[in-house]
Amino acid sequence: MKKKKKNVNAAILIIGNEILSGRTQDKNIAFISNWLNSKCGISVKEVRIIPDVERTIIKNIRTLSKRFNFVFTTGGIGPTHDDITAQSIAKAFKVKYGYHREAYKILENYYGKAAFNDGRKKMAKMPLVAKLIYNPSSAAPGFKTKNVFSLPGVPSILNSMIDNCKKYLTKGLKVHSKTVNLFTVESNISKKLAIVQKKYKNYVEIGSYPFFRLGKIGVSVVSRSTSKKKLTNVNKDLMKIIKDKKIKILNI
Amino acid sequence: MKKKKKNVNAAILIIGNEILSGRTQDKNIAFISNWLNSKCGISVKEVRIIPDVERTIIKNIRTLSKRFNFVFTTGGIGPTHDDITAQSIAKAFKVKYGYHREAYKILENYYGKAAFNDGRKKMAKMPLVAKLIYNPSSAAPGFKTKNVFSLPGVPSILNSMIDNCKKYLTKGLKVHSKTVNLFTVESNISKKLAIVQKKYKNYVEIGSYPFFRLGKIGVSVVSRSTSKKKLTNVNKDLMKIIKDKKIKILNI
Repeated sequence: MKKKKKNVNAAILIIGNEILSGRTQDKNIAFISNWLNSKCGISVKEVRIIPDVERTIIKNIRTLSKRFNFVFTTGGIGPTHDDITAQSIAKAFKVKYGYHREAYKILENYYGKAAFNDGRKKMAKMPLVAKLIYNPSSAAPGFKTKNVFSLPGVPSILNSMIDNCKKYLTKGLKVHSKTVNLFTVESNISKKLAIVQKKYKNYVEIGSYPFFRLGKIGVSVVSRSTSKKKLTNVNKDLMKIIKDKKIKILNI
Repeated sequence: MKKKKKNVNAAILIIGNEILSGRTQDKNIAFISNWLNSKCGISVKEVRIIPDVERTIIKNIRTLSKRFNFVFTTGGIGPTHDDITAQSIAKAFKVKYGYHREAYKILENYYGKAAFNDGRKKMAKMPLVAKLIYNPSSAAPGFKTKNVFSLPGVPSILNSMIDNCKKYLTKGLKVHSKTVNLFTVESNISKKLAIVQKKYKNYVEIGSYPFFRLGKIGVSVVSRSTSKKKLTNVNKDLMKIIKDKKIKILNI
């Protein structure tokens, strides 16, 4: 991974009718976002979920790859007719599409010549300029085209190969977070919380999220910052509010 | 709900740093998409997840409300400083923002005058032209501004109030689906499947999704269409392929 640079960002593009229709519950967004932040210091700034439609994929690849440092796509790199991510990315960047020599070799070795049918061969078709992202689970590689990383949609396979993206990424500053869970309601702390957020507005992002647990309602206050020191300062201010208002903290 | 119209579509805009950062696993996308299709015949064509940043919300509201028949937003309508959906939507449409008289009354009645503090009052602030979406769980209403429906981020509350959106929606044709789970691999059926998809390309959308179950790998073939008859025809073709290839069907 290259040297640290502040504020490195990314977008995630989920390609697949099955997620849009609600048939399948997505699990890749949270996984990729957590991995990018914790392992690379990269913050996901936008996610889009789009159908398996070529012109839609092309348009979104062009927009997101210009707007963000990196783009991660999931889905559409398998052997069937609805797997059109690779060809769409080639068209988006106007680069040649065909059998990627290294990918072809990997797949041919994995399946053996006799069982290397057309469907399986399709998984070796991608932008010829692409760099491969090796897949320890099921051989078919992901690939990086310019700043776009294309990964499969099956979560277990994606999870097994994401570390292989690391060498192509520029490392940013990790966002640390601190959560305090309170037995109170948001409206009880909203005024004071807004004052703390204003005080640290350039350094810390404070979010407030209601929860329901143990039959009671509560609020998780989440502070996020690239500076651990600033987080400690915010926490001191929060503790003062909690003490003044006699709010019970839930330790979980 | 108004009379049926073919191909009514929608977009979902998830507003919230907690989903983008991966801290919270989204559950609203699949729920809204399933509800829209099964109850209203409306297909979700795009989903975006964006941060709690005013200019980003404004830009996305403008783009999506122009491009799709309806837009559903989730998140950012609570009492805290990071809840900026209502004001952003007012700005996106250049309409007046302030206390919505009906929402104010609902909340004042719910909390009682003495406990109706500034945080709670904030939840009555929205575009003045908005129509309310009643909330049976926790009183604070959602609202509809032009073709944009704003709902809360907490799934249990969202789920309890979504039926109240129905009266404002135009009904489309429901997309029916048929799933066949096969003990085979995608590459074994990809060629034949592509032929069936081509034959029905204007009527039926066929997707193929690998699964892992009972220690075996398999493929779910999902056909989707507004025509039940066309689905039956596709199914006949699929059954022929399955029989010819001697593939075992998994009944679940």
